[in-house]
Amino acid sequence: MGPHPAVAAIRLAVRRVLHDILNDSKPDAEPVVLVACSGGADSMALASALAFEAPKLGIRAGGVTVDHGLQPGSDARAEDVVLRLTALGLKPVESVAVDVGRDGGPEAAARDARYAALDAAAESHGAAAVLLGHTRDDQAETVLLGLARGSGIRSLSGMAAMSGAGGRYRRPFLTLDRQTARKACLVQHLPVWDDPHNTDPAYTRSRLRHEGLPALEKALGKGVVEALARTAQLSRDDADALDTWARDAAESVRDAAGLLECAKLYALPPAVRRRILRRTAIEAGAPAGALFARHIEEVDRLITGWRGQGEINLPGKVLAQRQGGRLVIRQG
Amino acid sequence: MGPHPAVAAIRLAVRRVLHDILNDSKPDAEPVVLVACSGGADSMALASALAFEAPKLGIRAGGVTVDHGLQPGSDARAEDVVLRLTALGLKPVESVAVDVGRDGGPEAAARDARYAALDAAAESHGAAAVLLGHTRDDQAETVLLGLARGSGIRSLSGMAAMSGAGGRYRRPFLTLDRQTARKACLVQHLPVWDDPHNTDPAYTRSRLRHEGLPALEKALGKGVVEALARTAQLSRDDADALDTWARDAAESVRDAAGLLECAKLYALPPAVRRRILRRTAIEAGAPAGALFARHIEEVDRLITGWRGQGEINLPGKVLAQRQGGRLVIRQG
Repeated sequence: MGPHPAVAAIRLAVRRVLHDILNDSKPDAEPVVLVACSGGADSMALASALAFEAPKLGIRAGGVTVDHGLQPGSDARAEDVVLRLTALGLKPVESVAVDVGRDGGPEAAARDARYAALDAAAESHGAAAVLLGHTRDDQAETVLLGLARGSGIRSLSGMAAMSGAGGRYRRPFLTLDRQTARKACLVQHLPVWDDPHNTDPAYTRSRLRHEGLPALEKALGKGVVEALARTAQLSRDDADALDTWARDAAESVRDAAGLLECAKLYALPPAVRRRILRRTAIEAGAPAGALFARHIEEVDRLITGWRGQGEINLPGKVLAQRQGGRLVIRQG
Repeated sequence: MGPHPAVAAIRLAVRRVLHDILNDSKPDAEPVVLVACSGGADSMALASALAFEAPKLGIRAGGVTVDHGLQPGSDARAEDVVLRLTALGLKPVESVAVDVGRDGGPEAAARDARYAALDAAAESHGAAAVLLGHTRDDQAETVLLGLARGSGIRSLSGMAAMSGAGGRYRRPFLTLDRQTARKACLVQHLPVWDDPHNTDPAYTRSRLRHEGLPALEKALGKGVVEALARTAQLSRDDADALDTWARDAAESVRDAAGLLECAKLYALPPAVRRRILRRTAIEAGAPAGALFARHIEEVDRLITGWRGQGEINLPGKVLAQRQGGRLVIRQG
């Protein structure tokens, strides 16, 4: 009798990713793969599947848990996760304590601190990859969070199956639902920890998970999570293609002095032209996170609705100005 | 003292569109513009603004109401709408009764019947345009309905400000919220009719309006409707650009005999390649509405994951097959 279907599903998902990692590794090496584990159901399931699959492929499997220090007793819990990962047979296993700052709100600050710690752990262990437990449900929530920004298809593209420097981070469960991960823990008798932040309505993602998405499913039907995850993949491919186009076109719309020619910009599709304007503004020093669609639209009107406008102030003290038939975007 | 801000807003929105229509019309003509009016707040506000603005621009303004025959007394109500439009000074005004079929579900069938009737009315009156009362809130709902299909950014692009044969249909209120239209009716003492279908939970859009969107706003904040409407515009531009690219690239990947070359398809970005495959399947007779992302992905694997697969069955009895280095998509 084979394993429970949920266990088979998580193992298959991990096996596929480990094969990819092996294909990218040096033939004679014994690569190290780490799992980032909070002790929650998703990452515990991931850790268990990694512990099962890695040895069969000649991969050394370890684990890292990050103590964000945001809740009383978080250090003891981190030690508990270390014990659980060790009990699964992972080695090396470590707990890393981080200081969470305040930049960009509590969720973003915790995420920044976490990834910095995981990067450092990956470096110190020479890890070929770090596995993350994000599921299809997390992906659906991320798409909705991106939708709320209203900043276009890149923000709808959710999390990548592979991301970070050199594709270090891998998300084997991105097409697997949360329920499967939870079930896999249950049937393997793995104790899991439910982060109270995940149900705290002070957090946007938690409100989305417990109120927003269920209401959407009630209105639109059960397939919403899957549809959102598929939207992420399609949007990512579309955004990548348009970025490629914009990068190529950005060269062909410059004059001999390297200035953008308005007539050539005008002839491009709006989607490509606006991406060029955005890239140029960022290259001139505008912070990407502060540059909104309305800024780019205002610059675009120097091309499409020219009526002698003055220079336009962009974030980061960047100025955009039409000079004759040229568009100049520079530090002010 | 000028008009109430809500009235000023609806008039400005209509005036802008009428200017566009005039720019597209023959100089000496007195163009006819019709408003499609259900008697609801959005389209009554639209009718009132058209009645106010059109005469000042030398435009003849008329109205059409469609009796879908789906509710008892709908014929009497249609006659009532005719009286109200006439009272606003519109001429010609007519009521058109339609038979709603069953194709594609109740909402799609009603929509098809409605647009067929509006097309016929536009033809018979030689109308330069038909104005539709869709608001930014309708647009947000349409984006979410598209999101639930999970079929990519074209389905996220909502309704166009201009659509139909020759850009006949115009939506002046697409950037205006529903509350403004309602307020404009109130302050102008225009009675409005609340369609019970709009609050009937049997309809997906109604569930979305009264449960799904409010829950999303609660989770994500008040800007959700605006963010969704902005997503529609950005997605539309992106989808247009990628369609253009795919159309151009479709020629360059064919051999002398007009067959698709797998190696050249492989070199394209996935987003462009899949659009070419989709177009080709539709040209071979696959019905667009039955052709899903998973079909295209399967055909795509003939290019990106070739391991000797057999021919692939697509909707409309279309077959896709790799023959040597060529991809053949044809009627089976």
